[in-house]
Amino acid sequence: MGLNAAKKIIKNHLVKGEMVPGREIAIKIDRTLTQDSTGTMAYLQFEALGIDRVKTKKSVAFIDHNMLQSGPENADDHLYIQTMAKKHGIYFSRPGNGICHQVNLERFGVPGDTLLGSDSHTPTAGGIGMLAIGAGGLDVAVAMGGGEYYLNMPKIVKVNLEGKLREWVTAKDIILEMLKRLTVKGGIGKIFEYVGEGAKTLSVPERATITNMGAELGATTSIFPSDDVVYKFLKAQGREKDFSCVEPDEDAGYDEEMKIDLSSLEPMAACPHSPDKVAAVSELESIKVNQVCIGSCTNSSYVDMMKVANILKGRTVDENVSLTISPGSRQVLNMLSKNGALGYMIGAGARVLESACGPCIGMGQSPATDAVSLRTFNRNFEGRSGTKSAKVYLVSPEVAAVSALTGHITDPRCFGKPYEIDMPKEFLIDDNMVVKPSENGDNVKIMRGPNIKPFPKAKPLTDVISGKVLTKVGNNITTDHIMPSNAKLLPYRSNIPYLSNYCLTPCDKDFPSKARKNSGGFILAGENYGQGSSREHAALAPLYLGVKAVFAKSFARIHRQNLINNGIIPLAFKKPEDYEDIDVMDELEMVDMFEQIDSDVIVVKNKTKNKEYNMSFNVTQRQRNMIKYGGLLNLMKEQHLKLNI
Amino acid sequence: MGLNAAKKIIKNHLVKGEMVPGREIAIKIDRTLTQDSTGTMAYLQFEALGIDRVKTKKSVAFIDHNMLQSGPENADDHLYIQTMAKKHGIYFSRPGNGICHQVNLERFGVPGDTLLGSDSHTPTAGGIGMLAIGAGGLDVAVAMGGGEYYLNMPKIVKVNLEGKLREWVTAKDIILEMLKRLTVKGGIGKIFEYVGEGAKTLSVPERATITNMGAELGATTSIFPSDDVVYKFLKAQGREKDFSCVEPDEDAGYDEEMKIDLSSLEPMAACPHSPDKVAAVSELESIKVNQVCIGSCTNSSYVDMMKVANILKGRTVDENVSLTISPGSRQVLNMLSKNGALGYMIGAGARVLESACGPCIGMGQSPATDAVSLRTFNRNFEGRSGTKSAKVYLVSPEVAAVSALTGHITDPRCFGKPYEIDMPKEFLIDDNMVVKPSENGDNVKIMRGPNIKPFPKAKPLTDVISGKVLTKVGNNITTDHIMPSNAKLLPYRSNIPYLSNYCLTPCDKDFPSKARKNSGGFILAGENYGQGSSREHAALAPLYLGVKAVFAKSFARIHRQNLINNGIIPLAFKKPEDYEDIDVMDELEMVDMFEQIDSDVIVVKNKTKNKEYNMSFNVTQRQRNMIKYGGLLNLMKEQHLKLNI
Repeated sequence: MGLNAAKKIIKNHLVKGEMVPGREIAIKIDRTLTQDSTGTMAYLQFEALGIDRVKTKKSVAFIDHNMLQSGPENADDHLYIQTMAKKHGIYFSRPGNGICHQVNLERFGVPGDTLLGSDSHTPTAGGIGMLAIGAGGLDVAVAMGGGEYYLNMPKIVKVNLEGKLREWVTAKDIILEMLKRLTVKGGIGKIFEYVGEGAKTLSVPERATITNMGAELGATTSIFPSDDVVYKFLKAQGREKDFSCVEPDEDAGYDEEMKIDLSSLEPMAACPHSPDKVAAVSELESIKVNQVCIGSCTNSSYVDMMKVANILKGRTVDENVSLTISPGSRQVLNMLSKNGALGYMIGAGARVLESACGPCIGMGQSPATDAVSLRTFNRNFEGRSGTKSAKVYLVSPEVAAVSALTGHITDPRCFGKPYEIDMPKEFLIDDNMVVKPSENGDNVKIMRGPNIKPFPKAKPLTDVISGKVLTKVGNNITTDHIMPSNAKLLPYRSNIPYLSNYCLTPCDKDFPSKARKNSGGFILAGENYGQGSSREHAALAPLYLGVKAVFAKSFARIHRQNLINNGIIPLAFKKPEDYEDIDVMDELEMVDMFEQIDSDVIVVKNKTKNKEYNMSFNVTQRQRNMIKYGGLLNLMKEQHLKLNI
Repeated sequence: MGLNAAKKIIKNHLVKGEMVPGREIAIKIDRTLTQDSTGTMAYLQFEALGIDRVKTKKSVAFIDHNMLQSGPENADDHLYIQTMAKKHGIYFSRPGNGICHQVNLERFGVPGDTLLGSDSHTPTAGGIGMLAIGAGGLDVAVAMGGGEYYLNMPKIVKVNLEGKLREWVTAKDIILEMLKRLTVKGGIGKIFEYVGEGAKTLSVPERATITNMGAELGATTSIFPSDDVVYKFLKAQGREKDFSCVEPDEDAGYDEEMKIDLSSLEPMAACPHSPDKVAAVSELESIKVNQVCIGSCTNSSYVDMMKVANILKGRTVDENVSLTISPGSRQVLNMLSKNGALGYMIGAGARVLESACGPCIGMGQSPATDAVSLRTFNRNFEGRSGTKSAKVYLVSPEVAAVSALTGHITDPRCFGKPYEIDMPKEFLIDDNMVVKPSENGDNVKIMRGPNIKPFPKAKPLTDVISGKVLTKVGNNITTDHIMPSNAKLLPYRSNIPYLSNYCLTPCDKDFPSKARKNSGGFILAGENYGQGSSREHAALAPLYLGVKAVFAKSFARIHRQNLINNGIIPLAFKKPEDYEDIDVMDELEMVDMFEQIDSDVIVVKNKTKNKEYNMSFNVTQRQRNMIKYGGLLNLMKEQHLKLNI
C-alpha cells in the first residue's frame, strides 16, 4: 500500500519512532515561524538554550499580532524580537508586512518541508503541501536550535472532496461543513489530507482557508497535496524553484476516510460562541448586523479581497454597520492599491486597517455591547472580540461583504452573479519589509524593554503532591479562557507575573486570588481542555500561580504538551463521571509520585471526600522525564542533553 | 479706522457686550462640531438641557478619536452619539470619514461664520476664514441649543507674513516660529490674524496648519482672511456657494502687530516636551529616530500626503524606524488611493492607519521605551504618546518623511529639489459617510451603553469654603496632566467615576486618594494651568473628587471656563510669590463667600500658616452667577432661563 502525502513528508523527516498512530515520533523541523504575541517568550526560551544561531533552513519572526501599541510594551517586544532575529540568524518580517500565515504562503513556505510555528494556525501552510504544525514557544525554540519535534503519530484522514462548489459557496463553507460534522474535538490526534477532484478545483488561498481552520477541529494539521495548483501559485510568486510535487501514491492508504460533495454545500455561518455551531446563512437572515470584519489569516488573500472589493464597488456600507477590512499582507494591500480595488472599499465606507490580525484577536474593533459581529475569521469564542456580550458569527468574505451592505445577515445568492476573480499570473513581489539577519550576530545588541520579565521555571517532581482544587470548569475551555487575550492583555505577553492576575478569570474571577491564597493547587476541567490558540501563556500563568496538575476529561494537543513542557501534570479521568464527584476546595493528594510517574495510571486521593480516582497518564517516556525534571528546559539542563545538532 | 477680519465676524455675531479687549461679549454661534472623546459628555449635557432639535445652521458630530475600540466602550459611545445625532438634527460623520477639523475644512466650514467645537483645535477652520473657537462640551451643548457663547473680547493681533517660504520650509515652520517667539502662553486672550503678501502665498491646508497650532499658543483662535485662495479651495470642493469674502479693511486697526519674514525661516522642530521648545532641524541631525508618525489634524491634507508619498516613492523606510501615516480624511485617502500615491507609501513600508487622530492622542502606536518619535502633530506633552519616557519631536511632513528614510532627524534640504504638488482643481467628493439626521427624531431610540454614566453636577455656593491643599503642581500643567488621555483611558470619557481614579496622577499619583480621604479640597498650581485640550473632563473629574477651587498663578482660557461651568472657583494669586508660601495639606478657608463672590478679590485664609492671601477673581457677572448656582446647567435651571431661541 502506497503512502499518502502527509506520511511521505513525515517519513522524510522521521528522526525517532515508528509511524504507527498514537505512538510517539520525533521529526526534523525544516522551518519555523513565530509571531509577536508568542514570539517574545519563544525567544526568551531560545536564549535560555544558549545557542548562537538558528539551525533550521529558515526561521522567520513575524510581527502581526500586537500592532495597536497602546503603551510602550508592544514596541518594546517588537524591538526585542527584531534584535534577537538579527543576532541569531532569523528573518524579521516588519510590522505592516502582513499576517504570518499569509506572508508565509506567499514568500516563505516550501512544499514537502516541515514547519513548526508558535501559532495554532500554522497549519495554514498545509495549503501549499507543507507539514505545518502549531506548537508552544518552547517547542519552537528547541526546533530553532535544531532539536527534533516530538508528537504522537496522528491518524491520517482522507477527506475526499467530490464535485465543485456552487456559486457563492466558498472554501469557508467546506471547513464549516467539516466543523459541523466533526465538532471542535473531531480532529484531535488527526491529520486531514484533502484530495479528490474537488480538491483540484481549489486555489491555494482556498486550500489555505481550509487548512487554517483545521486548527478549530483540534487537528494536528491539515494538508493539501502539492500539485500543479501549488506550482502555479509559487510561480506567480517568483518561487517556482521552491516547488516540489508531494502527492499521495495512487494506492495510498489512510487511517480513516470521509467525503464531502462540494456541490451540496451552501453558504454557512458558525454561530456564537463556537466554530462548530454551524448553520445555513439562509436560516439566519433575520439577524441585524452591527459590525462586519473582513480579514485574518483565514480569509485575507488577494482573491478574497478582490471579491469583497467588487461587491462593495459603487455601494455604501449600511448606516448601522461598521465594516473593517484587514488585507492579509502588504503584497495583497499593495496589489489592491495598484489595481484600484482599495478605492472601491474606501469609497463604500470600509475602514481599512493594517495588514495584521487586528479584530480577530480582539486587538481593536471590539463591537458594541450586545452587538452582532460578522467576521471572516476562524474563532468566535465568547469574549475574544473584546466584548463579552457580543455575538460573533464566522462567515465567508462574500457573506460578510453582502451583509455589510444590507445591514443583516444575508445569503449572497440573492445578489446575482458572483464576481469571477482569477488568481494573478504574477503577484507584486517586494520583500523590502523583510530584514535579513546579520551574517555574524556578535555586534547586535539585544534591546530588552522593562516589561520583558523572566519566565517562570517549573520545579522538579516531588514524591507527594497535594493541594486544593482551585476551580472547576466545564467542557471545551479554550486557551482564551485560561489566559485571556485581548488588546488590554496582549501587551503583557512577556510579563507572566502581570498576566497571571487574569488567569482563568473568564471562568472564575477569583482563580488567581484563590491560587495565591492556597499557594497553588489544581485545576479541574471537562473535555477538550485547552483548545484554541497555541499560547504557552496558558501553561506559564498557571505555573506562576503554583498549579501542579490539571485533571480533565480530555486535553487539546498543543496545550497538553505546553503543560508538560512546563512541568504541570495533565491527568485524564479514567472514569469521566469522577469529575462530578470532585468539588472546588476539595483537598487532593498524589503520593509515591517518584514511582507513579512512570505508570500509565496515577491514583489521586480526595482527602475531603475520602475517595480515590484513577487518572490516565498516557504519555511518552520523554514526557515523563520532563515532569520529573520540571519541564523541558530543566530536563535539557539536568541531563546535560545536547541538542541533536 | 476700519475693521480687521476677526472683528468683522465678531461684529456680525455680537449678541451682548462691547468689542473692547478684556470685556465680556456674547456671540451667536452658527455651527458646532463635536468629536467622540468629548462628544458623549456634550450630548449628555445637551440632553440635560431638554431641547428637541439643534438650533444652529448646522451641527456635526464626528467620530475620529476613539477608533481602536479595545473593548465595547468606544463602540457604545459611537452608537450613543450616532443615535443622539439622528434624533436631534445633527449630521453624523461616521468612523473612517476622517478627522473632524480636516473634514470640516473640506465639507462643512463656511467663511465668515462662527464655529464652536468641543475640541481645542477647532480654530483649524480659521484657515478658511471662520471664527472658530474650541470650548468645553457644555458650552457647545448650549450653542447647539441656540444659546450664545460668552468670552472676553480678545486682542486682535496682526501677524504680517512677509516674503515667501524657501524650498523645504513649510507652514509648520511658520507656526513653530510663532511658538518659539511667543511660547505656549503667548496667545492667551488673543486672536492672531495672519495677513500680508506671505499669507496670500499660502494654500488653505497650509493656513489651516497654522491656525490649528494657534491652540498651542493658548490663543482664543487664529484666522486667515477669506480671499481668492479660499474661494478656489471651496470651488474645488464643489462648495463655491459657501464662499464669502472676509478681508480686513485697508485701514483696519489691530490691538497688536508683529511680522515674520517667511524667507528667513528654516525647517524646525519642537523638542520634547513642549510645542514651544523649538530648534532648527539642522541642529538635531545627530538624533536617531525610532518612529515617525505622519498625519493628525495639523498635517494630513492631500498636499501634505502627496509630498510624503513622493519622498517615499521607490524607497524603503529605514530598518530601525516604524513609519505610520494617517491620512486626514476619507477624501484624502480616496484620492491617494485613486492616483497611486498610497501605493508609494505602502511600497516604502509605511503602516497606513485609519483616517483618524490615532497616535496623536496616544490612540495606538505608542513608541518603545525611551524611543525618539518624530511626529507631524501639534502636541508633544510628556506621556501623551502613551510612552512616558518617549521623546517626541514635532516637525513638518517633509522632515518626517525624509527622516523616516534616513533613520535620523534630517534636514530635508539635503534631499534635492522638493516635489511641487499643486492644489487639486477638483477634490473627490463623496459624502456617503455622513449620515443625515432624521426629519423628525420621534422614532429614534437613543442607544446608551453600560459605560455611559451620569456626569457629576456641581452644588450651589456655600458661605464658607474650607479644605486642604491636596496637591501643589508647577507651571504649564496641561489638561493631559489633569485628566490623562491615552488609549487606556479614552474609552472611559463617558464614565467620570472611573476616570477620576487617574485625575492629576501624572503629577501626583496619590491625588485621587488624597481627595477622597479629605472629602475634596483645593488644587494649587503655577502659571498657565490647564493648557492644551478643551476636555471638560479636566474639570469634571476634580468636581467628582470634591475639588472646590483651584489656586493658580494663571489659567488657560478654555479650562478656566470649564472650571466655572462646573462650579469650581478658579482663583489667581494677586502676588504670585504667595504660591511659594502654601504647602500641601495646608488648611485653607474662604468665608463670607456669598458676599466675596461678587468681588474682584477674594481673601483666602491659610489656617495652617495663619496667613491670608488676596486672590484675583476677575470674572463676569454671568460667571459669578454660575459659581453661585453651581455651574452653568444649574444656573439655567435655577433661573428658569430659557435659551435665547
